[in-house]
Amino acid sequence: MSPGPPVSESERLARAALSRISEPGYPRMTDAVQELGAARVLESLQTQAVHRELGADLAERLASADPQRDLEQAAARGIRFVVPGDDEWPVTLDDLAHAPHLHERGGVPIGLWCRGPLRLAEAAERAVSVVGSRSATTYGGSVAGEIAGTLARESWTVVSGAAFGIDQAAHRGALAGRGPTVAVLACGADRAYPSAHRSLIDYVADVGLVVSEAAPGCAPTRIRFLARNRLIAALARGTVVVEAAVRSGALNTASWAGGLGRMVMGVPGPVTSAPSAGVHQLIRARDAVLVTSGEEVLEAVGPMGSYALSEPREPEHPRDRLEPRQRQVLDAVPLVQAVDSRKIAETAGIAHSPTKEALLVLLRAGLVEHSLGRWRVAADPALDEQGEGWAP
Amino acid sequence: MSPGPPVSESERLARAALSRISEPGYPRMTDAVQELGAARVLESLQTQAVHRELGADLAERLASADPQRDLEQAAARGIRFVVPGDDEWPVTLDDLAHAPHLHERGGVPIGLWCRGPLRLAEAAERAVSVVGSRSATTYGGSVAGEIAGTLARESWTVVSGAAFGIDQAAHRGALAGRGPTVAVLACGADRAYPSAHRSLIDYVADVGLVVSEAAPGCAPTRIRFLARNRLIAALARGTVVVEAAVRSGALNTASWAGGLGRMVMGVPGPVTSAPSAGVHQLIRARDAVLVTSGEEVLEAVGPMGSYALSEPREPEHPRDRLEPRQRQVLDAVPLVQAVDSRKIAETAGIAHSPTKEALLVLLRAGLVEHSLGRWRVAADPALDEQGEGWAP
Repeated sequence: MSPGPPVSESERLARAALSRISEPGYPRMTDAVQELGAARVLESLQTQAVHRELGADLAERLASADPQRDLEQAAARGIRFVVPGDDEWPVTLDDLAHAPHLHERGGVPIGLWCRGPLRLAEAAERAVSVVGSRSATTYGGSVAGEIAGTLARESWTVVSGAAFGIDQAAHRGALAGRGPTVAVLACGADRAYPSAHRSLIDYVADVGLVVSEAAPGCAPTRIRFLARNRLIAALARGTVVVEAAVRSGALNTASWAGGLGRMVMGVPGPVTSAPSAGVHQLIRARDAVLVTSGEEVLEAVGPMGSYALSEPREPEHPRDRLEPRQRQVLDAVPLVQAVDSRKIAETAGIAHSPTKEALLVLLRAGLVEHSLGRWRVAADPALDEQGEGWAP
Repeated sequence: MSPGPPVSESERLARAALSRISEPGYPRMTDAVQELGAARVLESLQTQAVHRELGADLAERLASADPQRDLEQAAARGIRFVVPGDDEWPVTLDDLAHAPHLHERGGVPIGLWCRGPLRLAEAAERAVSVVGSRSATTYGGSVAGEIAGTLARESWTVVSGAAFGIDQAAHRGALAGRGPTVAVLACGADRAYPSAHRSLIDYVADVGLVVSEAAPGCAPTRIRFLARNRLIAALARGTVVVEAAVRSGALNTASWAGGLGRMVMGVPGPVTSAPSAGVHQLIRARDAVLVTSGEEVLEAVGPMGSYALSEPREPEHPRDRLEPRQRQVLDAVPLVQAVDSRKIAETAGIAHSPTKEALLVLLRAGLVEHSLGRWRVAADPALDEQGEGWAP
């Protein structure tokens, strides 16, 4: 994918070392590596030239780092270290170099530890993130699963965070749809958080991809969740928030997506449901587009026109098949108290004779009732008498 | 209210006659009256000068019209005929002269038949329409009632159509909140449609206002519902659609509101609920603003800043009260497997001694746990360990 020369072994080792000693998304580090390359940053740390810039403790930790061993141990666990310049590196991640920082996290990752058969760049080519509350409702979980299933069946990758609730439903929906799915973790790619999701995460690693910016063995911390959220946003063309309380991690991911110029989408729910309040807030603030289905998600993120939706329509009404004059007469037939055809002709503004002809057609179609020379709308027509079926 | 001279008796009688013989919102009629005044249109009809323009049958019907008797009979039933130029005429209705027609309906009403103690102009001064599906869900009815109640308590008029479902819930919510409410009917103001709502409609007439463009005695027809919808939209500063199927009368009202430059608002619901599909479509098309409460409705339609909402917030988190360094340390404490304070200091990028001080503060606050020299995040803190509580 990348047109450049292959990444040098020394650069890869330097990135592995820096990945081990620094926190994910630590902007001073990601910026320095982006500007100078990892080998030079490492060298500067070793010669203590950039100590003050990067924090006094890093050089110390560096002494105990053994990137060669780290890479070998990772490989033994099926984990590869993917860095910028690799064929597998998704160029879209480089957008992080210019995105605004959030909560003092940001920048292009130094490298990503990946476990699973999917190639990250390919997986990210057509990907949507589906995120939301860990305390999801049955409704939210079901909608997340549906959306992920639709994406999967169209061979779009579902990116999420393997958390309880919406994340889990999203991965499961993608797996059930036999589509690609990527779990981005806040802990090392060899670990499972939450531990109850070990089998889910291992399954994703078997058929999809488990990704982490934190080196193998790392525990999940809040810092790492905040840094992780930016990757979920950056790896996809858009982020769908299914349920999210007012201050939630899913909204943090949505903010990253917005800052990265990705499409932000929100699934509405009952206004009485607290887990939907954050989503409604996003849509109200016009930070997110309202979506109700996987098809609408694809329409929003797919190449222009490729998933254009037909407007949802109710089934055709019998009146749709009427000629204009017949419709005009029908619209003048009273709903309750029957009247004679002359009165209907008056209301319709049509002469008496064609009105009578039209009434006979309507009678045969079961749309009006007739008794003792008087007419009214049929008791239970497949019609909506209050102007429904009429919205433009 | 109106600065002009009082309406002449002949003009009022002419309007009553035209109201009796023509259909509500028949654009040729409303346009002709708007341009020439009712007395001249009536005269033209009588001399057959505008026959071809207005339809051959009108002059015929005119022969049998007796506006003087009509007005007297209406008055005997407590119904007054309000026309442009009257003190009670809401000038906002004149916006209909310039709004695009829908379904061949449009224009400023020739007059409105009103039953009830409210003065129409005053009622329309601060009014919101609350409309929606007749086959509403419990959810929709409850939200419509809540919104109407909030509007009522702020002395805003709730306008609706007295139909089953959302309309009914809106009127009832307004009545329960002891606020003004206006029911705009498609049949005559002396009648009740649906007949099951006779007592509701009579109650609205007792304490609020029942309004119709159709002359007393008129039956409801589809034409009259379509014309009625434009009045519901025009009488209010904004229209809230609570539940609406994809092709529904409520969306027709919303289209009128949009065409009149009124605020259009929609209440979301589960994406799995058909009665919410039309509302979601409105919001997706950016034809409507998403609202979740009466307060948000007031913020949208009220004078700028008068109902400014504070952003909804979750209750404060204990971490909100921490100092920055303490927060930085907390963010570096692992969620699962406890580590020693030196390791936490490394992750936090803070020297060991201040890290230990911060950990003691966090321990006293119940945010971390400590055992055998190792620390982890407290098992059940009032925290959200996945970056929740962190959305910007």
